[in-house]
Amino acid sequence: MESLKKAVWEANMELPKYRLVTFTWGNVSGIDRDSGLVVIKPSGVPYEELQPEQMVVVDLEGRVVEGNLRPSSDTPTHAALYRAFKDIGGIVHTHSPWATSWAQAGRAIPALGTTHADYFYGEIPCTRPMTEAEIQGAYELETGNVIIETFTKGGIDPNQVPAALVNSHAPFCWGKDPHNAVHNAVVVEEVAKMALHTFQLNPGEQGPMDQRLLDRHYLRKHGQNAYYGQQ
Amino acid sequence: MESLKKAVWEANMELPKYRLVTFTWGNVSGIDRDSGLVVIKPSGVPYEELQPEQMVVVDLEGRVVEGNLRPSSDTPTHAALYRAFKDIGGIVHTHSPWATSWAQAGRAIPALGTTHADYFYGEIPCTRPMTEAEIQGAYELETGNVIIETFTKGGIDPNQVPAALVNSHAPFCWGKDPHNAVHNAVVVEEVAKMALHTFQLNPGEQGPMDQRLLDRHYLRKHGQNAYYGQQ
Amino acid sequence: MESLKKAVWEANMELPKYRLVTFTWGNVSGIDRDSGLVVIKPSGVPYEELQPEQMVVVDLEGRVVEGNLRPSSDTPTHAALYRAFKDIGGIVHTHSPWATSWAQAGRAIPALGTTHADYFYGEIPCTRPMTEAEIQGAYELETGNVIIETFTKGGIDPNQVPAALVNSHAPFCWGKDPHNAVHNAVVVEEVAKMALHTFQLNPGEQGPMDQRLLDRHYLRKHGQNAYYGQQ
Amino acid sequence: MESLKKAVWEANMELPKYRLVTFTWGNVSGIDRDSGLVVIKPSGVPYEELQPEQMVVVDLEGRVVEGNLRPSSDTPTHAALYRAFKDIGGIVHTHSPWATSWAQAGRAIPALGTTHADYFYGEIPCTRPMTEAEIQGAYELETGNVIIETFTKGGIDPNQVPAALVNSHAPFCWGKDPHNAVHNAVVVEEVAKMALHTFQLNPGEQGPMDQRLLDRHYLRKHGQNAYYGQQ
Repeated sequence: MESLKKAVWEANMELPKYRLVTFTWGNVSGIDRDSGLVVIKPSGVPYEELQPEQMVVVDLEGRVVEGNLRPSSDTPTHAALYRAFKDIGGIVHTHSPWATSWAQAGRAIPALGTTHADYFYGEIPCTRPMTEAEIQGAYELETGNVIIETFTKGGIDPNQVPAALVNSHAPFCWGKDPHNAVHNAVVVEEVAKMALHTFQLNPGEQGPMDQRLLDRHYLRKHGQNAYYGQQ
Repeated sequence: MESLKKAVWEANMELPKYRLVTFTWGNVSGIDRDSGLVVIKPSGVPYEELQPEQMVVVDLEGRVVEGNLRPSSDTPTHAALYRAFKDIGGIVHTHSPWATSWAQAGRAIPALGTTHADYFYGEIPCTRPMTEAEIQGAYELETGNVIIETFTKGGIDPNQVPAALVNSHAPFCWGKDPHNAVHNAVVVEEVAKMALHTFQLNPGEQGPMDQRLLDRHYLRKHGQNAYYGQQ
Repeated sequence: MESLKKAVWEANMELPKYRLVTFTWGNVSGIDRDSGLVVIKPSGVPYEELQPEQMVVVDLEGRVVEGNLRPSSDTPTHAALYRAFKDIGGIVHTHSPWATSWAQAGRAIPALGTTHADYFYGEIPCTRPMTEAEIQGAYELETGNVIIETFTKGGIDPNQVPAALVNSHAPFCWGKDPHNAVHNAVVVEEVAKMALHTFQLNPGEQGPMDQRLLDRHYLRKHGQNAYYGQQ
Repeated sequence: MESLKKAVWEANMELPKYRLVTFTWGNVSGIDRDSGLVVIKPSGVPYEELQPEQMVVVDLEGRVVEGNLRPSSDTPTHAALYRAFKDIGGIVHTHSPWATSWAQAGRAIPALGTTHADYFYGEIPCTRPMTEAEIQGAYELETGNVIIETFTKGGIDPNQVPAALVNSHAPFCWGKDPHNAVHNAVVVEEVAKMALHTFQLNPGEQGPMDQRLLDRHYLRKHGQNAYYGQQ
């Protein structure tokens, strides 16, 4: 548990390093699948003061198991995603500005080039607007549910598209561990920025990239015969 | 008074840290409501040379009570806001570029997402253009008056929307103390940037966010039953 | 002369500090009006290696008077401006990206708000395209001439509008001394950025700011009864 | 070979310095024309850990001659370019965001001003989309081939236009040595950014710059009678 706390703390500290957060607008969690326990950032603590021992341990229902501070108010969202997406090991939520602009526009980020294809096997979806009942009910839990619904109904594999935009809100990203989730959050921000500028160059006409090029790039990094990197 | 001077100086020094100012294009003040005295940055002094003891003390009419330097030329604007908005404890004025672009366009920043809703309970209004008489008269005082008019006529609570754009000029932001006012100024700049990019993704069609989502986010941080953060 | 060399060197070193230059894409000069001698950056020397003693001294015809290095290839432009604009003491040329985008578009930067009005008493003009004869002749001298023509024909006072955009090229800015010229170059870049974003908020409809507000702001900093700052 | 390894390592380390890369999204190579050996970055190694001795030596067919790590997955692209463009000594590939936005849009970057003309004697071309056979075949080799085809069919001299955008992908840039190739990559990113903003100022109407001005600027730096810089 201590090593997961350290990993979650380190991943949280990467958010300001990669300029993904303003103030406390972000949080990272990680899960230990054996025990089913989740480690998450405490709510509202500034990054410059954040210490590894302040990380909060919760169970998969979001109940605090260890720690003196309140967990992130987004904890029920994280827990819902861990319950539904069985393979993921880390989740990050930020209000990173380019991705958030797409979320505010209620639009998925289409795959427009190989940068996107290297990480996401198709567009990064945006959820439908939440209903009045969802907003006024268990809002943070429902935020997780609407992400899960987007993947289920859209037939999207969360292992192949490790991010979603929540409508009128901001991105949630995930990965095999907390560090990898932050890595994907950086990529989402970068492709969000480039996709907006690409649209500006072909207003009203820009289509998605060639599916075969998307296949080639995604699979050369993530397929069975991947040949990028040292392994 | 010395502790307020220090707080005002520290808040002024946050402006370059958060990249809200170029040269001397900004100022922060704070008020001691018991004595009715306001501490404000001296006019035209570069931030890299600014010292706590240079802060100028003025009364609520903007008359210098203590200090060897001239107060900010915007002092009458600050004083007018302190007189009208009884609960605020700090004010910041900058020409931060994204918010200033909205002010130059004469447009309010609409609430387009939860980042905005976490801090501002509705759009950040833009004042009407000032009249010839206002511009040629007590201009800085009238700048405060046109902000106040915007809130009064629009039925806006300055505690719930702690910022305004002055038409063809730039933002004024406030808060419970000088530090909190700067915090809000950072948020204004961030939501101004994201709102412009959101509009570019849905040109001519982007509407404001769902009112119930706005309620939910504003009230979970600021309502009676707030549950964000550690208190 | 040594103090002018130091001032010119310091002003050159401000260009990377304010992120106005990439590589060697900029130069600052200063003039000693008594001797009629101009000090200017040597051509093509990287900023990280630039030393005060490398500054080149030229006369008002651009002929080298002192120094072992070639002066900036833009020296004839600087000299032409010093001959025509009798009150200026420093000139800076950069390819700062926002201002250069306006120059490439062949458009003047209109006065859209008080940030602009605090420094420029009206729009920052853009020259006409240069003719074939000008381009193929004494090109750098003609670059200065087309700037001067823009001010003469447009009835613009170079003391009140201390910058010009050269069509398809980039900005030239000036001031009472080299440091002040760099200061104005920073402002040009900032107002260029904000003006583009302002246009994007009101596409096809954005007009210039109220002339009386322009008067008020320009004159409160630069008029006879200026009341900004400590003097 | 050791000095080329050092030069290639140094040029790779310039990519994060000039903010051209996120994570490992870039690589630089250099060639020793006498031996026909190419030195290139290993695949997927983070820049903060990169050491000169990790550079991989390959022959002009891309076969590893020396080194324990896999060479960049883009090695066949580099090798193809070295075989076809006989004068170049260094190649750099990045996903720098502004240039990549143009590549994703499938558009050449037109020459819009003197910044562009100082380095590129005409537009920076964008390749046609790759065919299914090219994508599913020897993809990285075909990436090189489609760049070469663009220059051959377009009658473009790779010494005068030292960069290309690969459709739906990103830029490849080159130069007389690895350091010079990175220099050109910085310029491509800068002109890509400015060209987009220039288009936004004249939507639907912006034409290329005057050919004679392009001639003048390119030739004053690169022609037989070049007079920029100290040589």
